[in-house]
Amino acid sequence: MNFADKLIKAVNQKESHACVGLDPRWGRIPEEIRNKAIAEQGETLVAVAEAIIEFNQGIIDAVAQYVPVVKPQIAFYEQYGHQGIRAFEETVAYAQEKGLLVISDAKRNDIGSTAKAYADGHLGTANVLEGLTVDLNTDALTITPYLGCDGIKPFVNNCQKNDKGIFILVKTSNSSAHELQDIKAEDDELVFEKLADLVDEWGTEVVGEKGYSSIGAVVGATYPEEAEKLRNLMPHSYFLVPGYGAQGGGAEDVVPCFNEDGYGAVVNSSRGIIFAYEKEEYSADYKKAAQQAVINMNQDINTALKKYKKFAF
Amino acid sequence: MNFADKLIKAVNQKESHACVGLDPRWGRIPEEIRNKAIAEQGETLVAVAEAIIEFNQGIIDAVAQYVPVVKPQIAFYEQYGHQGIRAFEETVAYAQEKGLLVISDAKRNDIGSTAKAYADGHLGTANVLEGLTVDLNTDALTITPYLGCDGIKPFVNNCQKNDKGIFILVKTSNSSAHELQDIKAEDDELVFEKLADLVDEWGTEVVGEKGYSSIGAVVGATYPEEAEKLRNLMPHSYFLVPGYGAQGGGAEDVVPCFNEDGYGAVVNSSRGIIFAYEKEEYSADYKKAAQQAVINMNQDINTALKKYKKFAF
Repeated sequence: MNFADKLIKAVNQKESHACVGLDPRWGRIPEEIRNKAIAEQGETLVAVAEAIIEFNQGIIDAVAQYVPVVKPQIAFYEQYGHQGIRAFEETVAYAQEKGLLVISDAKRNDIGSTAKAYADGHLGTANVLEGLTVDLNTDALTITPYLGCDGIKPFVNNCQKNDKGIFILVKTSNSSAHELQDIKAEDDELVFEKLADLVDEWGTEVVGEKGYSSIGAVVGATYPEEAEKLRNLMPHSYFLVPGYGAQGGGAEDVVPCFNEDGYGAVVNSSRGIIFAYEKEEYSADYKKAAQQAVINMNQDINTALKKYKKFAF
Repeated sequence: MNFADKLIKAVNQKESHACVGLDPRWGRIPEEIRNKAIAEQGETLVAVAEAIIEFNQGIIDAVAQYVPVVKPQIAFYEQYGHQGIRAFEETVAYAQEKGLLVISDAKRNDIGSTAKAYADGHLGTANVLEGLTVDLNTDALTITPYLGCDGIKPFVNNCQKNDKGIFILVKTSNSSAHELQDIKAEDDELVFEKLADLVDEWGTEVVGEKGYSSIGAVVGATYPEEAEKLRNLMPHSYFLVPGYGAQGGGAEDVVPCFNEDGYGAVVNSSRGIIFAYEKEEYSADYKKAAQQAVINMNQDINTALKKYKKFAF
């Protein structure tokens, strides 16, 4: 089953279009978890890794029933070196054990054999020694497109071979996104629109039974009008939509990222879910808070979808 | 001393504009190193990491006297998960011990606090616990620009704060580079030229005593005419030039990447140096072969520079 079909199956099971971003920040992990890790491991990067793993497992336990997919942002692990990557690997394994799909938000990019190395590490098996697999192995990966198709094809190959997915940065949610993405070409098309055409083309070979391709796009929720345009340019691509919640996007803003069939987008929230316990309206127990925040987010998005699109479930 | 000044000092000391790419590939590491690692660690990722470390240390010993800088491509480590990243860290530390500057070729990119996490991990100290530093810590990092300045500023900040450098992908050496990079804007400028203007602007606050900024650019050696244009658009930026050797660029092709003062570019070769031992004209001893290959490369580039530019040493 290709990645898009797996994703849709999970969306239907959980009745949710939400993705929980697992972006641990040391200072915001509940103090008791940090203190316990330091007591056991000293003030070391091992302690940091252990605290992250325990925190993430708690979040995963709390949300696994309510969302199809989680998205660890690898920067928050990589910054702690190889111990951080160990924490990433254990987080991925735990989430998959709990039946969740995992998108590695790594925004990787390179060409040729280097891109293949990334693709093999994140979306397959770096077959270095017979039978050895690498624990980095996730279900999908975010990709940056500046290098053109040489930097995309090695990832597409692994999507085909290993039933994995990628989400290519097309239109991001940040305020300087326009600097390169919105340059107007001589034919009046914008750079990100030209890229959207390419994404649609790259996806044609990896379309699943439900009509969606495993070559998705990252489309920021902060630009709803552009989302609508992009939805038309990439009808078969699943959108990964950041910017909901902490970054200012609301449920109505993400609606244009969906197709008329009520599918086509997973909406990510990171801080708004995993650190919900810091807010007064939520439980001080970080797991209960995350669970409630995810239930609220599902309701918020599903209500908006019901209003404007064919409701999926 | 800012990164550009450190780089120029090292270039002068070694009388070399070359950079050795440390891109280990399991199957091309000499068999005795692989067998030894497997004998000691079994068929595990630990063995893979140990073999990479030993191989890299041999290369570093062989070339440290002849080049200012090395550039591990992190994809070739990351593909082996956290053990691979451990090998990366040990490689970086060993190279720095031997007096080499290290550019992490990671092509990282993200925005806001996520970009800061990458910047802190690669170009500073992820100050998570008092006194803890992360071993990922390199001297410079390659960056992808698709997100605009939000994705650049956090890295520039660390360049200023910690005397580090970045090289922003402007014009790459691959054949599909044109798909996005060469889109012609309505004012007739190409996307990569507009980016070059931005890079020049971002660098103004980080110019060192020698007139070079710590905000460099990646400019492929396979497009010499464009290199000349880019040299004019970014007079203060150091160029990191891939594509020499294995990718088809020669010494004459890289000359336009230099300024008239004979500085302004470091030219990378990876496979051509570290796997020189596979070629008949070189020693079968991989260290001797790498050393000879680097001496040849220096001579090749310095001869071409002498012909066309003010020769630096």
